Amino acid sequence: MTKERAYFEVQALKKHGSLCPEHVPEVYHFDREMSLIGMRYLEPPHIILRKGLIAGVKYPKLAEHMGEYMAQTLFKTSLLYNTTTEHKRAVAEFCGNVELCRLTEQVVFSDPYHEAQYNRWTAPHLDSEAQEVKEDNILKLEVAELKLKFIERAQALIHGDLHTGSVMVTSDSTQVIDPEFGFYGPMGFDIGAFLGNLLLAFFSQDGHSDQKDDRKAYKEWILSTTESTWNFFQTKFTALWDENKDGAGEAYLPTIYNNPELRQLTQNKYLLDLLHDSLGFGAAKMIRRIVGVAHVEDFESIKDIDKRADCERQALRFARKLLKESRTFNTIEEVVKAAKEFNI
Amino acid sequence: MTKERAYFEVQALKKHGSLCPEHVPEVYHFDREMSLIGMRYLEPPHIILRKGLIAGVKYPKLAEHMGEYMAQTLFKTSLLYNTTTEHKRAVAEFCGNVELCRLTEQVVFSDPYHEAQYNRWTAPHLDSEAQEVKEDNILKLEVAELKLKFIERAQALIHGDLHTGSVMVTSDSTQVIDPEFGFYGPMGFDIGAFLGNLLLAFFSQDGHSDQKDDRKAYKEWILSTTESTWNFFQTKFTALWDENKDGAGEAYLPTIYNNPELRQLTQNKYLLDLLHDSLGFGAAKMIRRIVGVAHVEDFESIKDIDKRADCERQALRFARKLLKESRTFNTIEEVVKAAKEFNI
Ligand SMILES: Nc1ncnc2c1ncn2[C@@H]1O[C@H](COP(=O)(O)OP(=O)(O)O)[C@@H](O)[C@H]1O
Ligand SMILES: Nc1ncnc2c1ncn2[C@@H]1O[C@H](COP(=O)(O)OP(=O)(O)O)[C@@H](O)[C@H]1O
Ligand SMILES: [Mg+2]
Ligand SMILES: [Mg+2]
Ligand SMILES: [Mg+2]
Ligand SMILES: [Mg+2]
Ligand SMILES: [Mg+2]
Repeated sequence: MTKERAYFEVQALKKHGSLCPEHVPEVYHFDREMSLIGMRYLEPPHIILRKGLIAGVKYPKLAEHMGEYMAQTLFKTSLLYNTTTEHKRAVAEFCGNVELCRLTEQVVFSDPYHEAQYNRWTAPHLDSEAQEVKEDNILKLEVAELKLKFIERAQALIHGDLHTGSVMVTSDSTQVIDPEFGFYGPMGFDIGAFLGNLLLAFFSQDGHSDQKDDRKAYKEWILSTTESTWNFFQTKFTALWDENKDGAGEAYLPTIYNNPELRQLTQNKYLLDLLHDSLGFGAAKMIRRIVGVAHVEDFESIKDIDKRADCERQALRFARKLLKESRTFNTIEEVVKAAKEFNI
Repeated sequence: MTKERAYFEVQALKKHGSLCPEHVPEVYHFDREMSLIGMRYLEPPHIILRKGLIAGVKYPKLAEHMGEYMAQTLFKTSLLYNTTTEHKRAVAEFCGNVELCRLTEQVVFSDPYHEAQYNRWTAPHLDSEAQEVKEDNILKLEVAELKLKFIERAQALIHGDLHTGSVMVTSDSTQVIDPEFGFYGPMGFDIGAFLGNLLLAFFSQDGHSDQKDDRKAYKEWILSTTESTWNFFQTKFTALWDENKDGAGEAYLPTIYNNPELRQLTQNKYLLDLLHDSLGFGAAKMIRRIVGVAHVEDFESIKDIDKRADCERQALRFARKLLKESRTFNTIEEVVKAAKEFNI
């Protein structure tokens, strides 16, 4: 498994790197036998984004860079840009990365919703909340739909693990690493992973505030970054669509869809559906980081356990609402507003 | 292309045959080099169902048999029955049948909606209707969504061309042939193909009525067969789900979904979504048979061109409504009622 993992990581790095070289480290060398990847060293001051978010550092270009990265990699591996023949060939190849897909299925879509050996949460504070997750039929109905979408829907070559630990940053560089879970899946899984992890960072901030810094301004910055990541993405994705409207993409043939009114309609519908997918997947990723097997440093590094539990509880309650009501949100601004209301 | 076509046809025949031997002819021999398939000869009085429907023959077991066939083949090649590992392996293999997928994309989801060289319709009677199809933005928005679902969603191993010309029947035998378009796609594409072609047969009947037989009773029989095909399918599919609820299927793990109330909820949701998919795909298949390249004998065999145009116009108008409003129907009975209202 570990060996094949490296193979698919390299395939994804190369493909995404060719589409968005500014935000993907170059691969210099790959030895499949040894599972050895030689890639660009992201020199200091590059650090893992999650650590920067815990430290309260602002990254003024993050939203624009991540919007660009997601738009380029997702648009250009989808049927908006490629023929069915190219698409199916690539889908078939990445079907081989099934072991890592199964791992995601388990830890994201299954473990939090039943008794699983390695589930944990801040106890006893969240005992009843963790139990509620297992007993919430509507939540489980929605999660099942997301799980099937994750397995069945080959929409684009996704990174597959796009949390804030898979991004390295400086004040003007943003680099996405570690796409070992890459395969043809739903675009919203990547977008949701990133937005969901920003929201986890937001809810964790009260646990990192102290007398020097109440983190109020930083919380605002995270929320505005969440908003503008989606908005940059949406703008860029739409621009790519417009630029490539006469291209080889199989989804919307120019002879059928090249009237401006209809293109507007199709773009609005595609992006609203994608927002809903992203919110659902993002919420599922948040939940699993609070009551599942793998937690995040954003919360884990909060020393005061009561404070930490408060932060996690807010995030969990918000995520459950988001997952169950994802389709009631029409804009990212409404999502951010709702997040604020849960941070009391 | 022709050679690979036979290969995938045999793969699909064997798989579906193993799951539903009563309704799939046995393959005795396959020579891949020669593209030669040896299979059970469906002896007379077996005839192609479409011809029986034109002749006004009733098949009392058709609905039950087709419900059984679709439930067995679709359920047992889906994630309700299989692990992700099995599923992805099979998905990857059938990605190879891309040439035939592309053909479907073109003739079902594209040609009717733009000027295409071989499009035809009963002219001049349907000139304005054919033009309307090309100018109906909402219709084209919905068709685009179906097309993407057709390409992206690997839900089950579908037959891929399940019209009434791919079924051979006697009064007590029903055999499904010719799955050369088989691949992992949306279940609703098969169900919709079959139901949509029954509805084409329904709308064609007024063109076949004469003084001996006004076809009124036969129209009723077609509609009740349409209804019961879906209902038998739904009952059988649900029964298979119940029987296999503790099996290896990855979609709904028993530890999460085995409370009766939740299983009911998930089944209702799955089957309502599937009905909507089926209606959308079925409507698209109807439309393409009236204004696209390949027509059906049900209408083509109506000698009086005015009568034929009247029949086709009703079918086309109904199909457009069905496609645009598929999600407003909650039961197959509502669909059948709507079809009657268009047959004036
Ligand atoms: N190209 C790189 N340049 C610098 N540091 C890197 C690079 N790739 C990974 N790292 C460091 O190594 C850590 C682990 O790498 P990662 O690819 O995320 O592996 P894992 O699959 O174990 O999560 C990262 O968190 C980061 O600190
Ligand atoms: N197993 C069979 N037994 C008897 N007749 C068959 C059988 N398979 C096909 N046929 C006859 O041959 C015709 C064409 O077969 P089909 O598989 O539908 O080919 P095509 O791909 O050309 O549509 C059918 O319409 C039917 O009349
Ligand atoms: Mg990593
Ligand atoms: Mg890695
Ligand atoms: Mg990793
Ligand atoms: Mg045939
Ligand atoms: Mg054939």
